[in-house]
Amino acid sequence: MEKKSFQEYYPEELRNCYGCGTNNSHGLHISSYWDGNEAVATFRPREYHMAAYPQFVYGGLIASLFDCHCIGTAAAAAYKKEGREPGSLPAYRYVTGSLHVDYLKPTPLGPVIVVRATVVEIKGRKTVLDATISTDNLVTAKAHVVAIRMVD
Amino acid sequence: MEKKSFQEYYPEELRNCYGCGTNNSHGLHISSYWDGNEAVATFRPREYHMAAYPQFVYGGLIASLFDCHCIGTAAAAAYKKEGREPGSLPAYRYVTGSLHVDYLKPTPLGPVIVVRATVVEIKGRKTVLDATISTDNLVTAKAHVVAIRMVD
Repeated sequence: MEKKSFQEYYPEELRNCYGCGTNNSHGLHISSYWDGNEAVATFRPREYHMAAYPQFVYGGLIASLFDCHCIGTAAAAAYKKEGREPGSLPAYRYVTGSLHVDYLKPTPLGPVIVVRATVVEIKGRKTVLDATISTDNLVTAKAHVVAIRMVD
Repeated sequence: MEKKSFQEYYPEELRNCYGCGTNNSHGLHISSYWDGNEAVATFRPREYHMAAYPQFVYGGLIASLFDCHCIGTAAAAAYKKEGREPGSLPAYRYVTGSLHVDYLKPTPLGPVIVVRATVVEIKGRKTVLDATISTDNLVTAKAHVVAIRMVD
């Protein structure tokens, strides 16, 4: 894994996101890294991030993890595709066009959550990604995300 | 609007959800009510629920609002369909099968967020819902949710 997360390469003024902004003191601080051709983020939920059943993870948190991880991966993949250093100018930043989550089974609350994403397609400003969430190597949710690059 | 929210009719042992559980002291306390044939929830985000751009709402929060509001609406609609009082036994409780969110435009952070859901179909244990999010009457996101009834 690389030393700095994708999110640490975001421009200073765009690090406010509740999900992944390094400057949001109340936020979740989701952090994503390359692991070969996949991008991976690990997250340890707080005990109050529970679903109706306290032994499982809240579905909205799962959606949030997919969202920030895939958006960060879209940005990192754009730099990679152009052979540019992450964080080099012009800065690339993506927003979520659509987020689809399939909840396959309950995600146990306790173990570290692992989010993995792969880039399916980069076409102009649009990047399409598939992702999974797992705990203890058991996949519990899948996502399909369309990320759109902001144009300054 | 009715006096008690859908979520206040959930069985006591299932009120733990971070998004809508009345017993989760750290949670968002999303609360849903009938408004004619639609279900409506209003939510005032905290100032730290921001996106990368601090003037907009975090997409993961938007997904969370859709999730809990639609799941609550699925339960309420099931009681309604059977002509039963909300909260009467046997208790109906739904979980999220899938959640699809289209982010149409940025949602301004500041105004009250209004979530509206309609039931598209109830078929056995599956309930399908469409929903919108708006601020100041401008729709900024749409969702399509498949809710699945838990069987005890």
